[in-house]
Amino acid sequence: MSSPPSAPDSDDREGGTAFLPRFDDKGLLTAIAIDSHSKEVLMVAFMNAEALARSRETGLAHFYSRSRRAQWLKGETSGHFLRIEEIRVDCDQDALVMYVRPDGPACHTGATSCFYRRLNGDVLERVGS
Amino acid sequence: MSSPPSAPDSDDREGGTAFLPRFDDKGLLTAIAIDSHSKEVLMVAFMNAEALARSRETGLAHFYSRSRRAQWLKGETSGHFLRIEEIRVDCDQDALVMYVRPDGPACHTGATSCFYRRLNGDVLERVGS
Repeated sequence: MSSPPSAPDSDDREGGTAFLPRFDDKGLLTAIAIDSHSKEVLMVAFMNAEALARSRETGLAHFYSRSRRAQWLKGETSGHFLRIEEIRVDCDQDALVMYVRPDGPACHTGATSCFYRRLNGDVLERVGS
Repeated sequence: MSSPPSAPDSDDREGGTAFLPRFDDKGLLTAIAIDSHSKEVLMVAFMNAEALARSRETGLAHFYSRSRRAQWLKGETSGHFLRIEEIRVDCDQDALVMYVRPDGPACHTGATSCFYRRLNGDVLERVGS
């Protein structure tokens, strides 16, 4: 997509050292949480600018719920916070990977990770704890 | 969000064995590619129903580009296909993790992974190869 002249161009975003997060037309970017110890993918969700700012300020993962249309602190109800140890940024800066230390199961179902099933043909098989 | 009576409810989606992918209001779900050997996150993108179907049929990761508004086969130009070894599905079935064997660097910049920079304060530092 073309950008206004004053906007950071793709070379700056991909090769530069400036953090220039690119939010989509709904003001969101994708955020993936990975257990920094086990390297397991725990969950994926979206962040708006405020959730990203709060995550960076507090070191606790905040997200934006598209269905509830609200920012939320992961663990606010369960106590299972995700403590951010490192944030990685992708080439075009529209996605983040957070390496985190989880205070408990990351999934609201009680599973360690939200990705507790694998696809075998057309059937889902439970694989995670 | 409430669903019509005939729609799969959240219990089916979260606890069942049926693959019931949930596409968002743009017809997309989030797909994360992880190197099945190194466990490194290679890239994250979106899939529409057709990209998901083609990925499952061919074993090669296909995505949907929101900016180009088109489905694409990862590696079609570069030859760096992502060969899918396993697909994991998250609790509410709106995100997938694919464990893949990459034929080459996953990032169009030539980096092994798109997540080749980490955030240190307000500055991005290169960490990946």
